[in-house]
Amino acid sequence: MTEPLASDSHFEDDTAVRLVDGVWKADLKPGWNVGDNPNGGYLLAIAVRAMLEESSRPDPLSVTAHYLSPPSAGEVEIRAGVFKPGKTIVNVMAEIWQDGRERVRVLGAMGDLSRRRGPSRVSARPPDIPPPDECVSLLDLTHQAGRAVPEIMNRFDLRLPEDSPWGRPGEGDPFEITGWIRFRDGTDPSSLSAVAFADAFPPTLLGAIEAAGWVPTIELTVHVRSRPAAGWLLGTFRTRVLVDGLMEEDGELWDSDGRPVALSRQLATVLTR
Amino acid sequence: MTEPLASDSHFEDDTAVRLVDGVWKADLKPGWNVGDNPNGGYLLAIAVRAMLEESSRPDPLSVTAHYLSPPSAGEVEIRAGVFKPGKTIVNVMAEIWQDGRERVRVLGAMGDLSRRRGPSRVSARPPDIPPPDECVSLLDLTHQAGRAVPEIMNRFDLRLPEDSPWGRPGEGDPFEITGWIRFRDGTDPSSLSAVAFADAFPPTLLGAIEAAGWVPTIELTVHVRSRPAAGWLLGTFRTRVLVDGLMEEDGELWDSDGRPVALSRQLATVLTR
Repeated sequence: MTEPLASDSHFEDDTAVRLVDGVWKADLKPGWNVGDNPNGGYLLAIAVRAMLEESSRPDPLSVTAHYLSPPSAGEVEIRAGVFKPGKTIVNVMAEIWQDGRERVRVLGAMGDLSRRRGPSRVSARPPDIPPPDECVSLLDLTHQAGRAVPEIMNRFDLRLPEDSPWGRPGEGDPFEITGWIRFRDGTDPSSLSAVAFADAFPPTLLGAIEAAGWVPTIELTVHVRSRPAAGWLLGTFRTRVLVDGLMEEDGELWDSDGRPVALSRQLATVLTR
Repeated sequence: MTEPLASDSHFEDDTAVRLVDGVWKADLKPGWNVGDNPNGGYLLAIAVRAMLEESSRPDPLSVTAHYLSPPSAGEVEIRAGVFKPGKTIVNVMAEIWQDGRERVRVLGAMGDLSRRRGPSRVSARPPDIPPPDECVSLLDLTHQAGRAVPEIMNRFDLRLPEDSPWGRPGEGDPFEITGWIRFRDGTDPSSLSAVAFADAFPPTLLGAIEAAGWVPTIELTVHVRSRPAAGWLLGTFRTRVLVDGLMEEDGELWDSDGRPVALSRQLATVLTR
């Protein structure tokens, strides 16, 4: 049942886009599903790949996806085009279509992180957790709990501290999940895959609110700020404001050199079971 | 030189949109300028007003603007349309055009905050600063410093604590500005004007970095989470990651009842003098 890989990277293969008669096409692979639908970060990465092609720029600086209707595994069409050319920043839009319905719309500002010049000053600090070897695998935890393992959990290796407060925050604490993440097949992270990593952790409030069955994303914005070094990424995602079933999820991704790779924020709806 | 107001609100008047042969038009008023160009939050509010009209929904839940080319005061055309209808969320896009050039493109998810149902839990807390009467006016401070007063500063009444660290953060501190804000003409805030308030504070790093002359926004996203109560808003804006001249600005707006009104984030470029 397992398809042979064209490269040695599932991410590389499964986000591939091809130009057919002026329109980008891609095949959504079920390996990135959560339940019956492809993960939002995976969809965003496919759109961004077509957008980078259109812009002739190597890095997504800021991308915003509006999720309209979940697609299924299978072929999609990506209608992508530059709407504002520029020397340093190229603005691109992409629409993912399947079965005659638009599924995701993305606005992006593309650029080249290696050519940016200007002041730097980082006051944020990466979260302080034990190294990956001393953390526990979310996949193992899920197996042990006898819970269904979403397909996507086989793509990512996600490790949480043993004393992780995820799923059981104290009163007044934010809903929060912090851990190490990398592709399970050893593919190193990139500015492109950063947009997928920004949506690869389970929802911050899973388990913490009885009613939280499914937390569909309305909108996700990712700012990629550095090309990541090889190795693990350290991610932390936090929800501080849940009002009438609407919540933000604020994310940070740090690379193995301790540099900030991406900031993300999504607006999501908490659906009750 | 002062035009009579149609309403008793500059914001209401100056963001008015009218449908002319199927296209929305608006007049950018110079009173919202910073230097020679209209403020980004003001432009966003105009786009959002047309988007709310198109969506027949009262509140912007999430809006993202990409700033392409600064327009000038004068007439603009707003090409707005729904691209995904829905019962609870309507997705709309708007483009602001002037002199044959697109200036701003906006994606939005519109809804009705009064009809949302679901769990609430807010772990974030409003910043703790002295009441407005005990704060100092940014306009007065700017006058006293002998600096040029941007037009927009006459539209907003912005008050900072006397010991505000803005412009002189300690080593390791984020660039940050926190203060009270309201319209100077007494117009109460709304879910629409929240998107303008989210871009009404001066840049977090102004004065703190010698090189920071102008900080143009690449992309601004605002999540409106509650309709604000009448009175002052309390705003706090923070930059933690400035890398190679790219920075985020994370904002929170709280209303006079202590409820979270909006979360905002923008990606901006620091241009050196």
